[in-house]
Amino acid sequence: MDKLVSLAKRRGFIFPGSEIYGGLANSWDYGPLGAELKKNIKDEWWSWFVRRRTDVVGLDAALIMNPKVWESSGHIAGFSDPLVECKKCHNRFRAGELSGEKCPNCGGELTAPKQFNLMFKTFMGPAEEKANVAYLRPETAQAMFVDFKLVLDATRKRLPFGIAQVGKAFRNEITPGNFIFRTREFEQMEIEYFVDPNDWEKYFEYWLKEMKRWLKHLGIKENNLHFAEIPEGERAHYSQRTVDVEYKYPFGQKELYGLAYRGDFDLRQHMKGSGQDLRYTDPEDPKKKFVPHVIEPTWGVDRSVLVAMLEAYHEEQAPTAEGERDMRVVMKFPSWLAPIKVAVLPLSKKEDLCSIAMPIYETLAKHFVCEYDETQSIGKRYRRQDEIGTPYCVTVDFESPDDKKVTVRDRDSMKQDRVPIADLEDYLGEKLA
Amino acid sequence: MDKLVSLAKRRGFIFPGSEIYGGLANSWDYGPLGAELKKNIKDEWWSWFVRRRTDVVGLDAALIMNPKVWESSGHIAGFSDPLVECKKCHNRFRAGELSGEKCPNCGGELTAPKQFNLMFKTFMGPAEEKANVAYLRPETAQAMFVDFKLVLDATRKRLPFGIAQVGKAFRNEITPGNFIFRTREFEQMEIEYFVDPNDWEKYFEYWLKEMKRWLKHLGIKENNLHFAEIPEGERAHYSQRTVDVEYKYPFGQKELYGLAYRGDFDLRQHMKGSGQDLRYTDPEDPKKKFVPHVIEPTWGVDRSVLVAMLEAYHEEQAPTAEGERDMRVVMKFPSWLAPIKVAVLPLSKKEDLCSIAMPIYETLAKHFVCEYDETQSIGKRYRRQDEIGTPYCVTVDFESPDDKKVTVRDRDSMKQDRVPIADLEDYLGEKLA
Repeated sequence: MDKLVSLAKRRGFIFPGSEIYGGLANSWDYGPLGAELKKNIKDEWWSWFVRRRTDVVGLDAALIMNPKVWESSGHIAGFSDPLVECKKCHNRFRAGELSGEKCPNCGGELTAPKQFNLMFKTFMGPAEEKANVAYLRPETAQAMFVDFKLVLDATRKRLPFGIAQVGKAFRNEITPGNFIFRTREFEQMEIEYFVDPNDWEKYFEYWLKEMKRWLKHLGIKENNLHFAEIPEGERAHYSQRTVDVEYKYPFGQKELYGLAYRGDFDLRQHMKGSGQDLRYTDPEDPKKKFVPHVIEPTWGVDRSVLVAMLEAYHEEQAPTAEGERDMRVVMKFPSWLAPIKVAVLPLSKKEDLCSIAMPIYETLAKHFVCEYDETQSIGKRYRRQDEIGTPYCVTVDFESPDDKKVTVRDRDSMKQDRVPIADLEDYLGEKLA
Repeated sequence: MDKLVSLAKRRGFIFPGSEIYGGLANSWDYGPLGAELKKNIKDEWWSWFVRRRTDVVGLDAALIMNPKVWESSGHIAGFSDPLVECKKCHNRFRAGELSGEKCPNCGGELTAPKQFNLMFKTFMGPAEEKANVAYLRPETAQAMFVDFKLVLDATRKRLPFGIAQVGKAFRNEITPGNFIFRTREFEQMEIEYFVDPNDWEKYFEYWLKEMKRWLKHLGIKENNLHFAEIPEGERAHYSQRTVDVEYKYPFGQKELYGLAYRGDFDLRQHMKGSGQDLRYTDPEDPKKKFVPHVIEPTWGVDRSVLVAMLEAYHEEQAPTAEGERDMRVVMKFPSWLAPIKVAVLPLSKKEDLCSIAMPIYETLAKHFVCEYDETQSIGKRYRRQDEIGTPYCVTVDFESPDDKKVTVRDRDSMKQDRVPIADLEDYLGEKLA
C-alpha cells in the first residue's frame, strides 16, 4: 500500500490535497494521470449503464438541495445524534445506547458525547441564520427520487427503468483514512432502478450480475472479492435484501460497492414530505397506480480507482533494454482503463528521428491518448511507461528513416514487433479495440 | 427565454432543483438530455484542450481545500466585507465606501450592512468550531497553483505548459438568476497556462484565438459575441490585460467566458503563504530560476449549455408528415453536441417492423447515442426529435421488410434518404463524423 501511495504521488496519479499547506484531513487530488484514470472509469460506466441502454437515463442534479429533502430522507434526524467515539478503535456509538464508559467493541476509553452531523452544513445567502442552513448531499441517491416524476414525464419511460447519476457527495466521517478508501469528499456512480413491486427479486439478481460483469471489466480478480449478504437486523428496516460487495484491501476486507433493495421507502417519504403524488400509472391499465419499488446499485468512484490500481500493480523481474535483468514495477491496467494508451519515443532528440516521431504522435493522438517523450535513456523511458501502465510504446530508432518501420513494445509481454509506419494506426487500433 | 426554459423542463434538459419542495433559490438539475448535453461539452473540451495536446495536463482536485489556500489567494479578506445591497437594482457595495444611504448606481434604497461571505462556509470534523471551518471553493483555479510543483515534478513538463480542470465551484451570490446564467453552484472549465514572463502577450493572443475557435465549434454566431477589453482601473491590480467574452443573451449583453493575464500573483501569494519554493528552473540553464506567469482562460460550463441552447433554438414553418404545414420547434445543435444522435422509429409497434427496428437500434447504439421510440404518430415523433435536436431519424416502414431499406430523415433540411439497412452504419458514421 505504501508503495502504491508513493508511486501515485511520484507519477502524478494522486497527490495529497493542499500539500504545500500541510494537507487537509485525508483529502486527495487526482493529478494528470489520476484525472484520466478516474475519467476513464466514469465515462466507461456512463457508456455501459446509461448510453447503451434503453432503460436507464442520466441525471446531473445540483449538489445542494432543499433541506426538506434531508428531512424526508431521514438524514437530518438520523445523522445528528450525540455520538461518542472510542479513542482506541475509533468506532463511534450513539451516546444513549451505551451503559458503561468503555467501548463495547474493544474496551477502549470513550470521548464525551458530541452533537455530530454526518452532513456538511453550510449557509445559502447573505446571513448565517438558521433559515439559510443548507447541506452538502451525503449521497447522490435522493435527487433521483426527488426528480422521479419530472424524469418520468419528460422521458415517458415505462417500468422497469433506472435513473443514473455520477457525482460528488460529502460525509463528515470522524475517521477518514486508508488513502482514497474513506474520504469526507467522495464520488459515487449510482442507479435507482424502479420496478414493479412483484419483480424486485428478479431485478436484484440481474443487478448483482451486472456488478460482477463490471468488476471483471475493471480487471478485479474474483478471489479478491466477497459478496456479503447482510442479515436481517443489520439491514435498513425497509430493505428485504442488501449485498455488500467487499474487496480484500491490504488493510483488510472492506466495502467496495453496494446493492440494496429499498422497497418504496424513499418515494413514500418524499410523497409525505412534499405532498406530491409520485405514483406510477400503468400505461396498459390507467386505473393501476402504485409507488414503484427500487433496486439501488452503488459504485464508489474513488474506491474503483483504488482497487483498479491495487489489481494493476505488479513487481517483476524483467530484462532491461541493455540486456541485463532488474526489477520492474508495471501497472497492468486493462487497456481501456490506462491513462495513456501509446507512448511515442524517438531514440534520440536528433532532427532525423523527431521529424518522423512527431507526425506519428500527431496521427495517433487523433485516436488515442498519447504521450511524446524524448528525454532520458530508452530503458528509463520504458520503465516510466510501465509504471504508469501504458499498453504500447512506439520507438523510432536509427533504422526507421531507412526502413520506414518502428518498434512497438507490448507492456505486459515486453515483446517487440517491427511495424511499418504506414500500418501503425491499424495495428494499434486493433490491439486497443 | 421563457420558451426555452419551458422546453428544457418538458423535454428533460433542465429541471428546477428540488422542485417538489418548492425549489431552492435558482438551483437547477440537468435531466436526462441536459446531462448528456453538458457531458458532451465537458468531454469535447477535455479532448480538445487536454488529451489532444502535449502541453496541457489535467487535474481533478478536492473541492474542499485547506482554508489557508483562501487566505493566500485573498478570498477570505476580499470576500467577507460588510456589504449593503440596493433594494432596487440589487447591486451591492462595500458599506465603508458609501457616504449616503442611496444607491450610487440607481439611487435606490440600501439595506443595512451585513457581513457577507461570498464563499460557502462549512465545518470539517465533529464539532462546529472555528478551528474546523472550511470553505467550498469559489473557483477551480487555486488548485492548479497549489499543486503546481507536484504536477511539474510528476510530469517533467517545460514552459509553456498548462494545467486544466473541470469542476464545481460555489459562490454565495446575493442575486442569482436568469435560469442557469447565474447560480450559486456552478461548473467551470479552466486552464492555468504557465509561461515565461517575456512571452505573456504572445500566449494571451494565442488563447484568445483558441477561445474563438471553441465558440465557433459550439455553434455560436460571431455577431452574438462581444470581446470586451477591460480597461485599467477595472482590472485586478496584478493583471495587465483581461478580456471578457460577452454574449447577447435575451436578458442583455453579459459575461460568458473570461481570459485574464494574472502575472505571477497567485504563485507568489502561495509562496508567501506556504513558505514553499514554487519557482521554475530552466532545464537548459539550472541557474535561471523564476516564478512563471499565468494566462488564464475560463469557460463556464452552465453558460456554455445556455448559449448552445439559445443558438440552437429555432421556430420555423415546416411541412408535417401528413403533408400540411405547421410551426416546428427545432434545436439545431452541431451533431457532436446533440444529446441523441439517431432515433430509430418503427412506423408501427407490430412485430414485423420491430423485429427489424430493434436490431438496427442495437447495432447503431454501439457507435452513437441512440433512442428507440415506437409510440404515437410518426409526425409527433419527428417533432419530438426536432425539439430535442436529434440530427437523424431512421424510420422503419411497411416496405422495409421487403426492400431491406429504411428512411433517414435529416433534422435541418427534413430531406429523406432511402438507405439500405446494410449501409446504414457507414452512412450515419460519415454524416456524424
